[in-house]
Amino acid sequence: MRHRGSLVMREVPVPTSVSAEAQRIIAMGPINPPTEYPPLDDIEAWRVLVAERDAATLAMIGDRAAGLPVVFDEIDADGVRVFVITPTETDPSSRHVYLHVHGGSFAFGGGEACRLLSIRTALQVGACVWAVDYRTPPDHPYPAPLDDCLTAYRFLLGRRAAGEIVVGGESAGGNLAAAMLLRARDEGLPLPAGAVLLTPEADLTESGDSFQTNAGLDPVLPGSLMATNLLYAGGHDLTDPYLSPLFADFTRGFPPTMLRTGTRDLFLSNTVLLHRALRNAGVAADLHVMEAAGHGGFLGAAPEDRDIDREIRAFVDARWADAGGDR
Amino acid sequence: MRHRGSLVMREVPVPTSVSAEAQRIIAMGPINPPTEYPPLDDIEAWRVLVAERDAATLAMIGDRAAGLPVVFDEIDADGVRVFVITPTETDPSSRHVYLHVHGGSFAFGGGEACRLLSIRTALQVGACVWAVDYRTPPDHPYPAPLDDCLTAYRFLLGRRAAGEIVVGGESAGGNLAAAMLLRARDEGLPLPAGAVLLTPEADLTESGDSFQTNAGLDPVLPGSLMATNLLYAGGHDLTDPYLSPLFADFTRGFPPTMLRTGTRDLFLSNTVLLHRALRNAGVAADLHVMEAAGHGGFLGAAPEDRDIDREIRAFVDARWADAGGDR
Repeated sequence: MRHRGSLVMREVPVPTSVSAEAQRIIAMGPINPPTEYPPLDDIEAWRVLVAERDAATLAMIGDRAAGLPVVFDEIDADGVRVFVITPTETDPSSRHVYLHVHGGSFAFGGGEACRLLSIRTALQVGACVWAVDYRTPPDHPYPAPLDDCLTAYRFLLGRRAAGEIVVGGESAGGNLAAAMLLRARDEGLPLPAGAVLLTPEADLTESGDSFQTNAGLDPVLPGSLMATNLLYAGGHDLTDPYLSPLFADFTRGFPPTMLRTGTRDLFLSNTVLLHRALRNAGVAADLHVMEAAGHGGFLGAAPEDRDIDREIRAFVDARWADAGGDR
Repeated sequence: MRHRGSLVMREVPVPTSVSAEAQRIIAMGPINPPTEYPPLDDIEAWRVLVAERDAATLAMIGDRAAGLPVVFDEIDADGVRVFVITPTETDPSSRHVYLHVHGGSFAFGGGEACRLLSIRTALQVGACVWAVDYRTPPDHPYPAPLDDCLTAYRFLLGRRAAGEIVVGGESAGGNLAAAMLLRARDEGLPLPAGAVLLTPEADLTESGDSFQTNAGLDPVLPGSLMATNLLYAGGHDLTDPYLSPLFADFTRGFPPTMLRTGTRDLFLSNTVLLHRALRNAGVAADLHVMEAAGHGGFLGAAPEDRDIDREIRAFVDARWADAGGDR
């Protein structure tokens, strides 16, 4: 069925319903610049783009990481590099592990960026984080990134009970985390105590309404990520549930899940549709929506982000307690 | 602080991410026509508008109410008329009561419209509904409507334990339900087992971002409701928590709450801000956001509405069970 749409033109002011810090972020946006993506088959151009973008990320965050109260380690998990980041406040006897899948449109944010950006995750959850440095496109499209996440999870299951594990990810990392849980389930592996999916890229087809309604309003994302979705998919069907977890059958099992998005998030629809799919399948799932926030909340710069940090901490602690992994 | 806003112009198509029934509703919108409201002090013109609008509502719903599986009764609750609507499926020994506060911009939807529109609520919750036919502006502005809700609640508390009661309301009814709970708390009354706030008008100042971002996109509401907000307030401060519950101190007590909105809802911000205020105060609160839905969901016409009906039923049943009101 096709219906006419709505023609909308308006000056949208920066809202007064959020903190001054959040207002500053909204007024700056979109923070990610519009990107001229190379043709899908120009591998070399993609390599250059990824290297440039990751170098820019490192230049931006490099100093901020120094002196933070975490301890770093590194594991070879059956061939997959995993950064282990433990907050110094963590009880050394704790066996809890938060398996973190980083974001970055599948192609970006690996290596040193993964290590440094995962510090924030470790401080959020207040527990040992295993950050999976999965292989990335253009050289390693689907299913390599997902394979690596599953390898790391399987390796972790050899060292921890499933109830001692929570799995999480943001954006493309939310896609990979959800897809990994679906594959783990389908391959008969035990599921972790919970999942944290932050503004997850649940649907690579971008069918959600917010790709239209929030275009030009998201303070972070300038527009569609279809170029990197196609680069990741490498010719595979975007509607396959391992590529777009939104289309999975969740009645066959999925752990209790917390989701976060914002009212201006280009992935608002991704997130609320996934929440509804989980709930309709009988999965325990909690939704948090930040007023006027885009993809990635307010980037950790606003008090509203700290409210969500508290929600994440409360969720993982409750899941670990409920799953009896608290030993 | 003032920041520049964003200029947004776009053709927003009807999304394919919702059911065909929901797509039809979205394509029709906005369903409520833009209204020329009379000047605030022209009481007679407001009386005419209310009578016309309520007559139109009754003409639309009159037939649909006939033959539905409910039994009607009417109570004089210390001077406030309450319609009692009991689904025929209800266990006659159940003591559960859902105190329902109807919507309609504070001024509309009273009398016979209240009685007939509350049938849907009774079928949603599967329990005895007490629908408060509170007095309305222009003749009875704040605090009369709120006084009547509190009178009905106090009357009900004489006949049921607090744990046998859930309170709910939609739109302006969500405002009144929340404000009534705040007043009940402040006056030392026991709080009910739970609250259901559907797209609540939590903030009469309309500070929320979605009053801008969803203008022209909500399939139900054409725009600001400030005229009726001011008519209801009758000169009182709109930021008073009894008028705008969003600004209340919820750390002093509020029952576990379920909230519902939609991504195109003009009240999206009202709802998510209230959810966050409750959660930040330590109140148990669950948020449900319907993809591409406006104010009032899809008006009961789409499968997505039935999903939320199931959530409401599950919430009230769980609240009644937890509160030990199941006797």
